[in-house]
Amino acid sequence: MASKFYALVIGAGTGTGSAAARRFAKSYPVVLMARSPASYQDAVDAINAAGGQAVGVSADAADEGSLKAAFARIRDELLPGHQLAAAVYNVGANFKRAPFLEATVEDLDGSLGGNVRGTFLFAQQTIPLLLETAAARPPHPPTLILTGATASLRGAAHCAGFAAGMAARRALGQSLAREFGPRGVHVAHAVVDGVIDIPRTKGTMSTAARRTGSWIRMRYWHLHTQPRSAFTQELDLRPYVEKF
Amino acid sequence: MASKFYALVIGAGTGTGSAAARRFAKSYPVVLMARSPASYQDAVDAINAAGGQAVGVSADAADEGSLKAAFARIRDELLPGHQLAAAVYNVGANFKRAPFLEATVEDLDGSLGGNVRGTFLFAQQTIPLLLETAAARPPHPPTLILTGATASLRGAAHCAGFAAGMAARRALGQSLAREFGPRGVHVAHAVVDGVIDIPRTKGTMSTAARRTGSWIRMRYWHLHTQPRSAFTQELDLRPYVEKF
Amino acid sequence: MASKFYALVIGAGTGTGSAAARRFAKSYPVVLMARSPASYQDAVDAINAAGGQAVGVSADAADEGSLKAAFARIRDELLPGHQLAAAVYNVGANFKRAPFLEATVEDLDGSLGGNVRGTFLFAQQTIPLLLETAAARPPHPPTLILTGATASLRGAAHCAGFAAGMAARRALGQSLAREFGPRGVHVAHAVVDGVIDIPRTKGTMSTAARRTGSWIRMRYWHLHTQPRSAFTQELDLRPYVEKF
Amino acid sequence: MASKFYALVIGAGTGTGSAAARRFAKSYPVVLMARSPASYQDAVDAINAAGGQAVGVSADAADEGSLKAAFARIRDELLPGHQLAAAVYNVGANFKRAPFLEATVEDLDGSLGGNVRGTFLFAQQTIPLLLETAAARPPHPPTLILTGATASLRGAAHCAGFAAGMAARRALGQSLAREFGPRGVHVAHAVVDGVIDIPRTKGTMSTAARRTGSWIRMRYWHLHTQPRSAFTQELDLRPYVEKF
Repeated sequence: MASKFYALVIGAGTGTGSAAARRFAKSYPVVLMARSPASYQDAVDAINAAGGQAVGVSADAADEGSLKAAFARIRDELLPGHQLAAAVYNVGANFKRAPFLEATVEDLDGSLGGNVRGTFLFAQQTIPLLLETAAARPPHPPTLILTGATASLRGAAHCAGFAAGMAARRALGQSLAREFGPRGVHVAHAVVDGVIDIPRTKGTMSTAARRTGSWIRMRYWHLHTQPRSAFTQELDLRPYVEKF
Repeated sequence: MASKFYALVIGAGTGTGSAAARRFAKSYPVVLMARSPASYQDAVDAINAAGGQAVGVSADAADEGSLKAAFARIRDELLPGHQLAAAVYNVGANFKRAPFLEATVEDLDGSLGGNVRGTFLFAQQTIPLLLETAAARPPHPPTLILTGATASLRGAAHCAGFAAGMAARRALGQSLAREFGPRGVHVAHAVVDGVIDIPRTKGTMSTAARRTGSWIRMRYWHLHTQPRSAFTQELDLRPYVEKF
Repeated sequence: MASKFYALVIGAGTGTGSAAARRFAKSYPVVLMARSPASYQDAVDAINAAGGQAVGVSADAADEGSLKAAFARIRDELLPGHQLAAAVYNVGANFKRAPFLEATVEDLDGSLGGNVRGTFLFAQQTIPLLLETAAARPPHPPTLILTGATASLRGAAHCAGFAAGMAARRALGQSLAREFGPRGVHVAHAVVDGVIDIPRTKGTMSTAARRTGSWIRMRYWHLHTQPRSAFTQELDLRPYVEKF
Repeated sequence: MASKFYALVIGAGTGTGSAAARRFAKSYPVVLMARSPASYQDAVDAINAAGGQAVGVSADAADEGSLKAAFARIRDELLPGHQLAAAVYNVGANFKRAPFLEATVEDLDGSLGGNVRGTFLFAQQTIPLLLETAAARPPHPPTLILTGATASLRGAAHCAGFAAGMAARRALGQSLAREFGPRGVHVAHAVVDGVIDIPRTKGTMSTAARRTGSWIRMRYWHLHTQPRSAFTQELDLRPYVEKF
């Protein structure tokens, strides 16, 4: 694959993350990031086996040093001379249902770490790269996609800490879209909900889930291919049976 | 084209409407509706010249009798034995900027007629057809797409009547999605904004506008192809330079 | 009562409308409007019996001529030389629950007439008066309050026509606030919900309902007394048991 | 003052915080909390001088141990035998405008600490007390008020970290309202904006600002006195000149 561009998905261990990576791999080399190889190795192997080019990198999104080291490795060792075409932040941290008075501050901190701090740090690493790409006549506008959930839109009983983290991520996305959209970087927030983002379970994935995964795959790709005359800042994807 | 399904776009005379019709025409026979042939004839001819199958029907969305007659003609004469796969409501009535105290009640009524009453009547004609289609193993879930604008999301000074009509259309769309989504009909609201929906001007359309039109075309099609496990109820499309 | 200012409530026949009128009557002469005296006469009598000054005027909010005649009568006969301090639009038209395919276009038109057209016409009559008041050193900023409902905020299954009308009213309110707030007129939208706005039933009103009415009374008054440095554009009032 | 109930304001050093405390002091003993006496002492003295009963307590909202110690002191030493009638969370942490790529993770952490973690910890301390109060026939429903800002509602360029924190606070408030409203605790989010919340500056406060402060004072009090049949979950207060 001769592309000088690459795509990157963090939180690659979920159904949404690996589905997105598979689709981007049809057009770019892809980097799959997660805290440990257990989360990304299967997807990396599957992409390489199918003729794509994938590498896995371990990093903790909520830890600035870990993230910086990972990006340095991509630049210096893994994909030297390449430019970042698209980055997907797909970490969903600490989803828990619990009565508020039984929730711990550690639960909250876990949600704020993975859902907010991680988004912030990931954006600080990727946006300078995406701005460089914007100046380099890329095939599509450089893109940062944040995965959201219904909890991003409104708080719910027994879900306070997760809702707080996801609402904050959405606010980050809006702020970044307003700041960097005019500079040519497409920042989108995809509200993916319900049974869509099931953990990838070998052998047991239903046809419906596989079909959905295939659709999500396309969807993130389409966000990336939007011309800058028609950026989508937010869209929702939810099963027809889901109440909203 | 052997398909027993067809697609229908009302308000076919705008850039968004004709772009959507052109894309649906790659997979289905299409009906283009507008108040007069002047609005749809060029697009109909272009689709037929390109090897698609298109017919134009004159109808006034805000007039129940006119709309019923048009649907009877489709069923009995134009596409007998076909089922409605996708319907797009793309009428944008009475967009005007004026100080509120200079706006007339006729302006308001024009907005409510084309933007609300028309949506309501069009939905009452199409949803029974889409429910029938849902039961007939269609290639994609039957779809009703409503075109919105930023004014759908919040009122603006000097734009009260249009904002009222578009907010009402959005509320109709939400109500319909909640009622008919669980029955398998995908109801989506697409906030299309800024310079996207320029009137189609022969010979003078810029490359950027043509590229955008091509993208919108794809976008409405993608909404239609979403599996019911991942319906989008609302998305926005706006130029990267647009303030929001 | 020596005040040269007066307040006006249209849709005075509901719990919210009469409660608001009673409170404004402590500070201003009040005009209660509704389509027929049956809706306002009891409240007018009660206010006058309690030492306030109230008059009733019959008018149809959705009919421009009827509304103009009513305002001319106030100016020329009922309260000559007075200025409008506060106007409350409290008409709630055509609330009905019905499956969408059983709703009639007359239901929709009823909702659009009373909920949108009426708001528009009432605002066109009152805003010029409120702008005059703004220039006359009133005790409080001149105020236009629109009563909303949860259906103003989002569509619901089986409630499409009412939701459309109320969403449109809210959009009108936002547009008016953006246009006339900077000119000193306070335009507020009060989302009043659930069991609050029960029809006033002689003798049978529960203590809870009476207490609630008394609170609403205060609430609309407080909106009116906000200094222009702290205008509220929207607030919600809903029972603690109400799901939202 | 014979009341067995008390009110508590944290973030008492701002205009909004001290204004709210002064009004609650007309009906209850009040506790003013802030990180250091410099923030609350003047307001404490002014309330006591005016015949109210006020005490100041130093605590850091974002530090669980500090907060727990403060509440233990209130219970055991300062107001033994009293019940919490109303609690106001008015801390606004780390408001800064900066290009996103110049913002530091410390800025973000400061916003998440004071704006989210602090709200969470404060709610965990106060809600059990408010639930006890709900069972004790209080004069008004026990109330938790969170102060918000326009940044709570949507992200803005150059304001990502603050917007993230405030959006998260709002989501916490919605979650708490949905969980504890049905149990009789009123959780409200007040969007206070623009020039309203100016720091209290001795001698230099303009008449307009003083008048505004006086109105805010009333406003928080009115939220507290709402019967549970008409809880407001959210309202906005913004100057008439403020764009929104």
